[in-house]
Amino acid sequence: MVVGCVVAHEDKVLLCRRSIEPSYGLWTLPAGYLELGESAAEGAVRETWEEAIAAVDIEAPFALLDIPRIGLSYILFRAKLRTLDFSPGIESLDCALFHIDDIPFDQVAFSSVTVALQLYVEDYKAGRFKVHHGVLDKRMGSSPSDPSGYTFRDHISN
Amino acid sequence: MVVGCVVAHEDKVLLCRRSIEPSYGLWTLPAGYLELGESAAEGAVRETWEEAIAAVDIEAPFALLDIPRIGLSYILFRAKLRTLDFSPGIESLDCALFHIDDIPFDQVAFSSVTVALQLYVEDYKAGRFKVHHGVLDKRMGSSPSDPSGYTFRDHISN
Repeated sequence: MVVGCVVAHEDKVLLCRRSIEPSYGLWTLPAGYLELGESAAEGAVRETWEEAIAAVDIEAPFALLDIPRIGLSYILFRAKLRTLDFSPGIESLDCALFHIDDIPFDQVAFSSVTVALQLYVEDYKAGRFKVHHGVLDKRMGSSPSDPSGYTFRDHISN
Repeated sequence: MVVGCVVAHEDKVLLCRRSIEPSYGLWTLPAGYLELGESAAEGAVRETWEEAIAAVDIEAPFALLDIPRIGLSYILFRAKLRTLDFSPGIESLDCALFHIDDIPFDQVAFSSVTVALQLYVEDYKAGRFKVHHGVLDKRMGSSPSDPSGYTFRDHISN
């Protein structure tokens, strides 16, 4: 299980540029593997601290995205920056706030992150944040960041 | 990861009486372990079929409840019965629809199910279903169904 945050500040979201493989140099949401003994929300806050040295408050669940072919589930929360202090952690080359119209979708590290950011932008523009569930089917042999390497199906939201 | 459904029919919810330990004879939501290669929603539909021989349509995510002490996460969806046909599967002694004011809270199998049903009843009465996340801390040595055997903390919803 991978846990992480869509960290918002006004009309911007916080992305991290990866300093590690896979997807070195591409942008991602702060997210990583849940550790033993922590809740999903606690793990999401910890990962955001580790990757973006950013203190956040969790606001609500945002998305549960399953990739059954590789046995991964992403649990993502919406969160707010406590202050404007952030800086790249050891797994990041850079961290930055991107306006929701300027998200670098051609340089996103993982298809799950692409889907999550698309859903976030849609909800932001619609004026209401929902909670989403859906399934990513990865095309065999596609790279994690291949924009045509997956299909998103069975999307439901509340 | 445990996946399951709060199956609704009008102002009632579907519960199953367990034919297996732990919590033999007590009532629960149709739920069980996610299997390899299925999404959370697919697993929830399968478990509902296995435990209540009921065909359901998933409507929306409902709750992510973590029990970090035992490394369990419950992912629950709201679902609707396709027809009024249901009957106990092999892990159930009985299945029944309970009016939301008549849920047998003193005979519920697991504290996670108690919390989920309480949240469901609250949302139903408030006229809007949210999506919930929270943490159950089990008291050491308490039974799975002990109504005072846990605390529920860090509740957030959208």
